[in-house]
Amino acid sequence: MSSSRLPSDTCVVDIHTHMYPPSYIKILESRSTIPLVRSFPQTTDPRLILLETEAKTLDEAKDAAAKLPGRPLTSHYASLAQKIHFMDTHQIDISVISLANPWLDFLDPSESGPMAESVNNEFSAMCGQHPGRLYFFGTLPLTASLDTVLSSVNHLKGLRYCRGVILGTSGLGKGLDDPNLLPIFEAVAASQLTIFLHPHYGLPNEVWGPRASAEYGHVLPLALGFTMETTIAVTRMYLSGVFDKVRELRMILAHSGGTLPFLAGRIESCIMHDGQLVREGKVGKDRRTVWDVLKDQVYLDAVVYSEVGLKAAIAASGADRLMFGTDHPFFPPLTTDEQGEWESVSMNAAAVSKAVGEGSTEAKAIMGGNAIDILRLNEDV
Amino acid sequence: MSSSRLPSDTCVVDIHTHMYPPSYIKILESRSTIPLVRSFPQTTDPRLILLETEAKTLDEAKDAAAKLPGRPLTSHYASLAQKIHFMDTHQIDISVISLANPWLDFLDPSESGPMAESVNNEFSAMCGQHPGRLYFFGTLPLTASLDTVLSSVNHLKGLRYCRGVILGTSGLGKGLDDPNLLPIFEAVAASQLTIFLHPHYGLPNEVWGPRASAEYGHVLPLALGFTMETTIAVTRMYLSGVFDKVRELRMILAHSGGTLPFLAGRIESCIMHDGQLVREGKVGKDRRTVWDVLKDQVYLDAVVYSEVGLKAAIAASGADRLMFGTDHPFFPPLTTDEQGEWESVSMNAAAVSKAVGEGSTEAKAIMGGNAIDILRLNEDV
Repeated sequence: MSSSRLPSDTCVVDIHTHMYPPSYIKILESRSTIPLVRSFPQTTDPRLILLETEAKTLDEAKDAAAKLPGRPLTSHYASLAQKIHFMDTHQIDISVISLANPWLDFLDPSESGPMAESVNNEFSAMCGQHPGRLYFFGTLPLTASLDTVLSSVNHLKGLRYCRGVILGTSGLGKGLDDPNLLPIFEAVAASQLTIFLHPHYGLPNEVWGPRASAEYGHVLPLALGFTMETTIAVTRMYLSGVFDKVRELRMILAHSGGTLPFLAGRIESCIMHDGQLVREGKVGKDRRTVWDVLKDQVYLDAVVYSEVGLKAAIAASGADRLMFGTDHPFFPPLTTDEQGEWESVSMNAAAVSKAVGEGSTEAKAIMGGNAIDILRLNEDV
Repeated sequence: MSSSRLPSDTCVVDIHTHMYPPSYIKILESRSTIPLVRSFPQTTDPRLILLETEAKTLDEAKDAAAKLPGRPLTSHYASLAQKIHFMDTHQIDISVISLANPWLDFLDPSESGPMAESVNNEFSAMCGQHPGRLYFFGTLPLTASLDTVLSSVNHLKGLRYCRGVILGTSGLGKGLDDPNLLPIFEAVAASQLTIFLHPHYGLPNEVWGPRASAEYGHVLPLALGFTMETTIAVTRMYLSGVFDKVRELRMILAHSGGTLPFLAGRIESCIMHDGQLVREGKVGKDRRTVWDVLKDQVYLDAVVYSEVGLKAAIAASGADRLMFGTDHPFFPPLTTDEQGEWESVSMNAAAVSKAVGEGSTEAKAIMGGNAIDILRLNEDV
């Protein structure tokens, strides 16, 4: 990257931006259970159906008048040219792209190793087509054997534009507090790869109540389910001691930590006031608190859509640990041209300006400078 | 209340403070399923077992060496003298007491009407013993018929020290977006009673993972389950239009809104970007947003245990809408004398001082002035 074209203090970096490369779309097209891609006679774009909450509308969609499940699979999901167009439209200098959920979580053990290799090579090749403008978070074949996963970490370590791995909350199927994940966390950390923790599974459907699927669209699972899933996952990691056991682990939490900045105080109070934990000596004076981890091992994206949320995230983690993101290609504009500006992007950019002042040192850091430093985006290109 | 003793600008009011009156404890003692009170040979205080997550330890507790389920039922739960002592110890001038969870949610329809009347009269009598120092939120017999519930609202309206009703998230069994609740919300609002929305049910156990019940104490269900439950309940109310349909409804959200201040931006974005809601014309320009409701019909307690959380709550709802609380008798000190100062109280008082400045106008408002104005604590005594 030429430092004259993109001096780090004015560079805009998008660290939360997804793609489904063509080979991945093919897998989704071949499936009959969620996640899947399916065409319907009522519409030109095929539909991308990702969430279990969409299963009901998937059944109903045989009726031509029924509402279609999921979301349209537009060119924004798989086209690199479209990604670059989106970046140019929004003055985004660099994107750190990642496979979107649910990654390879649903693949048979025998398939996931080769698929991870293929997807990671595809991401690597895309970055190579736009050197200095694209980096990526790789994908791990978590349903395969430990050896296969560790080989994949090693593969990613050698890929020039790879800066981390995107990770869901299921881990090996038992969540991220599973001790069997420790060798993987250790290998990722030792390879200087940053984990990007991202939700997919949300919460069990029953919590949304009987009216949700018919009346509230995707609002509850996306707004609340996703953010609560992330918060639960990282809190379980904290309670299990992962951050102490793997001190070099670095983890970006999607959506400004889900709700962790707001709840960290209550989590701390519940720990201090828990009879069992106190009795077992787990609440000692040298304990690293949730606040310590937020300021040391955790980074947050700035995808929180409000000044209120962003200020809380900054207060919890530090203006030097927040990184701008767009969540492209999700949340496209519904009433304006998809090729133009996206309000989901401008809401988050405006939140940064409002929270720390437009053009301030902190704003420049959050909009790009932090990502360049934290993810070493000025090295090796 | 003599205004010379407690001028409203220095008065400390605790609006989040619970009791189980003796008649309610008796019911819990008679039960064999959760919620219940049970004695164990290993300890002097009986144990109060409230949460479904405690069912496993309840079974195991037959073994004298096993860890005991729930929490000790100390005198703090049922003794009025103890409540007054707690208030004096913490310089709390006025408490607005309420029945603790799970209220009357588990009673047979035939029992809940008489029990609500008895509990509400007991609370009323307790307040009468300390005029000017105690007010209360009443309890509704939600498992009974609509007529019985409306009679109970009417009963509460006539009780001198009653200022509202405490409400769980199950409503009539289908959540608070159930249209059958509307007449109850209307009656409560018309009676100038404020709802205190409080969690109890948390989230389904599976989200905490296989290690939680053995290793993490109550941390996950209390820190995350409670706050997420509240957020889900109020978001479902918002999406179903309750706040528009009952414009006079006023609702205090426990624990500073659960996570609503932090997530309001994302909820708004998910609404604006939801294909179904946009298609159905539910995202019009005159729509009252979540932010509007937070600044108009919602109040928040200040029970969030951090400056970060409290500042977000204030930014979302306004310093004139936050009200101090303690959550007594829950979260007692574990390593110091229960008759002395409670750290769970000082954490929240310190958060107010840090967020808005000790002794500032805003601090005085949050510590008591707001509650006096909002709940009319200087009237009719």
